[in-house]
Amino acid sequence: MTSTASSPRSVRYRRPDVLITFLTDFGLEDDFVGTCHGVMKRIAPEVEIIDITHGVEPQSILQGALVLANTLPYVPEGVHLAVVDPGVGGDRREIAIRGADGRLYVGPDNGLLVPAAEKLGGIEAAHEISNREYALEPVSATFHGRDVFAPAAAHLAQGLDIGELGPAVEPDSLVRLEVPKPDISARRIRARCLYVDRFGNMQLNLTRRDVEQLGAVPGTQVELELSSDRYYAIAARTFTDARDGEIILYEDAYENIAIAISGGSAAVTFSAHPGTDVRITLAG
Amino acid sequence: MTSTASSPRSVRYRRPDVLITFLTDFGLEDDFVGTCHGVMKRIAPEVEIIDITHGVEPQSILQGALVLANTLPYVPEGVHLAVVDPGVGGDRREIAIRGADGRLYVGPDNGLLVPAAEKLGGIEAAHEISNREYALEPVSATFHGRDVFAPAAAHLAQGLDIGELGPAVEPDSLVRLEVPKPDISARRIRARCLYVDRFGNMQLNLTRRDVEQLGAVPGTQVELELSSDRYYAIAARTFTDARDGEIILYEDAYENIAIAISGGSAAVTFSAHPGTDVRITLAG
Amino acid sequence: MTSTASSPRSVRYRRPDVLITFLTDFGLEDDFVGTCHGVMKRIAPEVEIIDITHGVEPQSILQGALVLANTLPYVPEGVHLAVVDPGVGGDRREIAIRGADGRLYVGPDNGLLVPAAEKLGGIEAAHEISNREYALEPVSATFHGRDVFAPAAAHLAQGLDIGELGPAVEPDSLVRLEVPKPDISARRIRARCLYVDRFGNMQLNLTRRDVEQLGAVPGTQVELELSSDRYYAIAARTFTDARDGEIILYEDAYENIAIAISGGSAAVTFSAHPGTDVRITLAG
Repeated sequence: MTSTASSPRSVRYRRPDVLITFLTDFGLEDDFVGTCHGVMKRIAPEVEIIDITHGVEPQSILQGALVLANTLPYVPEGVHLAVVDPGVGGDRREIAIRGADGRLYVGPDNGLLVPAAEKLGGIEAAHEISNREYALEPVSATFHGRDVFAPAAAHLAQGLDIGELGPAVEPDSLVRLEVPKPDISARRIRARCLYVDRFGNMQLNLTRRDVEQLGAVPGTQVELELSSDRYYAIAARTFTDARDGEIILYEDAYENIAIAISGGSAAVTFSAHPGTDVRITLAG
Repeated sequence: MTSTASSPRSVRYRRPDVLITFLTDFGLEDDFVGTCHGVMKRIAPEVEIIDITHGVEPQSILQGALVLANTLPYVPEGVHLAVVDPGVGGDRREIAIRGADGRLYVGPDNGLLVPAAEKLGGIEAAHEISNREYALEPVSATFHGRDVFAPAAAHLAQGLDIGELGPAVEPDSLVRLEVPKPDISARRIRARCLYVDRFGNMQLNLTRRDVEQLGAVPGTQVELELSSDRYYAIAARTFTDARDGEIILYEDAYENIAIAISGGSAAVTFSAHPGTDVRITLAG
Repeated sequence: MTSTASSPRSVRYRRPDVLITFLTDFGLEDDFVGTCHGVMKRIAPEVEIIDITHGVEPQSILQGALVLANTLPYVPEGVHLAVVDPGVGGDRREIAIRGADGRLYVGPDNGLLVPAAEKLGGIEAAHEISNREYALEPVSATFHGRDVFAPAAAHLAQGLDIGELGPAVEPDSLVRLEVPKPDISARRIRARCLYVDRFGNMQLNLTRRDVEQLGAVPGTQVELELSSDRYYAIAARTFTDARDGEIILYEDAYENIAIAISGGSAAVTFSAHPGTDVRITLAG
C-alpha cells in the first residue's frame, strides 16, 4: 500500500518556504497534477502550490525549460518543482538545485531546470535525489513526479536541508540543453519557432537586438519566408498598431521576438509549430 | 529586470479583502494564468485566488462578460479580476470599478466588467488605472494582465483605496457591449446561440418568459430551424425527461434557455457555435 | 436570487476537516468548476480544495470511479466530492458516504463513489442528501454539482454531522458499477482498454498477475491484436527499456497493465479509446 514517507529523525530542517511552484507537461485531463498536489499536501499541509502551467507540449524539455526561465522572475521565491521527464525510469538522475539567490529547484537532470537557475543568479549547489526516505514507497517505474519529485519538493518546502536528499553533484555535470541559435547576417535572419501560444502567436529564438541589427524597427516592412511561402509583415509594438489580418513582428511580453496576425492566428495561418523555420529579410 | 512595485508611502489602504476571483481567455496551456497568480502572490502573499475560468473563447469579450455576470452571485465577494483584452496596447482604458455592494472589479474598459457590476447592484465609482506605482515595471505592450491588472487587483485585495489607482471616470463613459436581442413574435422566435459548453449544450439569448410567450411549456413539442435544417424538440425540465437522442429545449442552471441532446452533443450535431441563429416555432 | 443556505440552529458539527478534494467531468473550459469552488468558499471560507481532475470523459461514470479509487490513497483525508452525473434531475439519489477510515464522500448515487470507498476500508454509513437546508435555493434541474453537492461537501468540511443531510440508506442499496472483466485462458487474454491518458498510454483491465499467468515477464515478446491488426510488443518495466517506436506492455503507476509506444502515442497509433478490445498472446 502506498504510504507517505514521514520525516526521519534528526535531520536538518531550515525555516520553511511554504511555497512550491509547479510546472509539468502532465496536462489537466488526467489526475497526474492533482495527485501530486495531494502528495505534497500530505507531507506539507501548510504548503501553498502555484501551478505555473501543466500545458507544456508532452515531453518537450526545451519548451518546459524556456517557460520556467521566462516565468520564475514573476513568481514568489520558493521551491520550484518542474517535471518534463521522457527518461523516467531510465538512468537520468533526479536532482535538486540551490540557486545563488536561495531558490530551490527539483526535477529530472535533463536540462529542464538549468536555464531558469542560471538566469536567476546561477547554481550554488546541486544534489542527486537518491535518499528514498524522502520518496513514496514503492517508487513506480513511470511516475517519479508523484513518487520522487513531489515528495522531495514538499520536504524542501518544509525546510529540509537539500543535502539530506542525496550526495552533492558538480553543477558542471548537470545536463544542458542546446537552444537552437539563429543565423544572422547583415541582410537576413534564419530563425526558428520555439513556442506557439493559445492565441497562435509564434515565439522565435530572437531578441529585439537581432531584428534591429537587420534594420527592422517599429514601422518597418519585412518579408517572412515560411515553408517556401513569402509574406509581408510589419515590425510593430503591439497588435493594435496593425489592421486586422496584418502580419506583425513584435517583441512579446517575455522579450522574445514573435510573429502574430492581428485579429487572427499566425500558427494556424502558417501551419507553424515549434521547430518551424522562418527567414526574415527587409522588404523592398 | 522585472520588479514588483512595492506599496508607496502614505496611501490609503482599507481592510483587506484577501480574495480575488480571476476570469480570462488565457487558457491553461501557456503560463499566462500561472504567471498572474505569481504576480499577485508576490504583492499580496495572503490573498486567495479563485479561478472562475480561463476557457473563455479567445478574445470573446461578450462571452467573458456573460460568464462573469452569471457566476459572480455564486462566489464570495472580493476583487473580481477579468481579462479578455483584444485591444491590449491600444488606447482602450484600464479600469477599476467599485460596485454598490462593495465588490471591486478590475479589467479593460471594453464592456467586460459592466454587465456583472450592473447585475450586482450597479456601479458606484469607476477609476482609470493609470498610476504606474501599482504596475510592474516595465509595462509590456501585450500582457497587461500580468503587468497592470493583476498588480492592481492584488493591491486592492490588500486594501488599497481604489482612488489611488488613478482618476475617477464617469460610470456612464464606460464602454458597454451590445448583447444580441432575440426577435420574438406571437408565432416564432429568432434567437442566437451565445455560448456552447463542454457538454455541447447551446445557450440562447432567451429566458423562460420568452419561450412561454410562444406557448412552449415543459412537454410541448417545438420545431427548431438551424442553418435551414428543421428538427423536432421538446420543451423539458431536464435531460432525464427525454429519451436518448431527443432534442430538448430547457432552462439551464443560469436561467437561460438552452438546447441539448439527451445523451449527446447538440453543438456537434448541429455544427453550432456562438453566433449560430436558431428559429423556434410551435410544432404542428 | 441565489442565496447560500446558512447553517441551521442546533445541529451537530464535529471537528472540521477543512479539506475537500474535487473530481468531475466538468472540464475547465466553462465556469462549472470555478463556480463550485466559489459556492464552497462562501459556505466554508477556511476550506482548502484540491482539484484531483476535471478531465473525466464527459458522463463516463466508470472512468471517474476508477480515477477516484486510484488517486485517493495519495491525497489527504477529507471530504471527497465527485460529480459525474448524467442522471442529474432524474430520480437517481444524491448521497453522502462515511468510510470506515473516516473519509467522507459526496456525489450522485450512480456508482461513482463506491469503488474508492470500498478500496479504502469500506462503507460505514450512507445518507441520502435530501435536507434542502444545506442546498442552494433554488436547486436547478441540471447543475446539482453547484446547488446540492458542493454545498453538502462544504458543510461536511465544516464539521456537519453526515446524518443532518438526510436519512440513512442501506450501503447495500447503493448503485454499483460493473467493471468489465478480462477473459483469461492459459494461452491468451482478452482485455479491454479502460482509459487513455494524455501521453496516449492505454490502461487495460489487467493486473501484473494476469499477464504473468500468461508467462509474460519483463523481456518477453507478446503479440497484441487490436481491431484485427497484429503487433509485436515487449513486456517491459518502463519506457526506457524500449527503443523509440517499440510497443511495450508495462505495469503503470497505479498497478494496472497498460500499453505504450516508446516516444509515441499508443492510442493514436491504434486509434484506441476506452472500450477498445485487446487480445494478448505470447509471441512465437
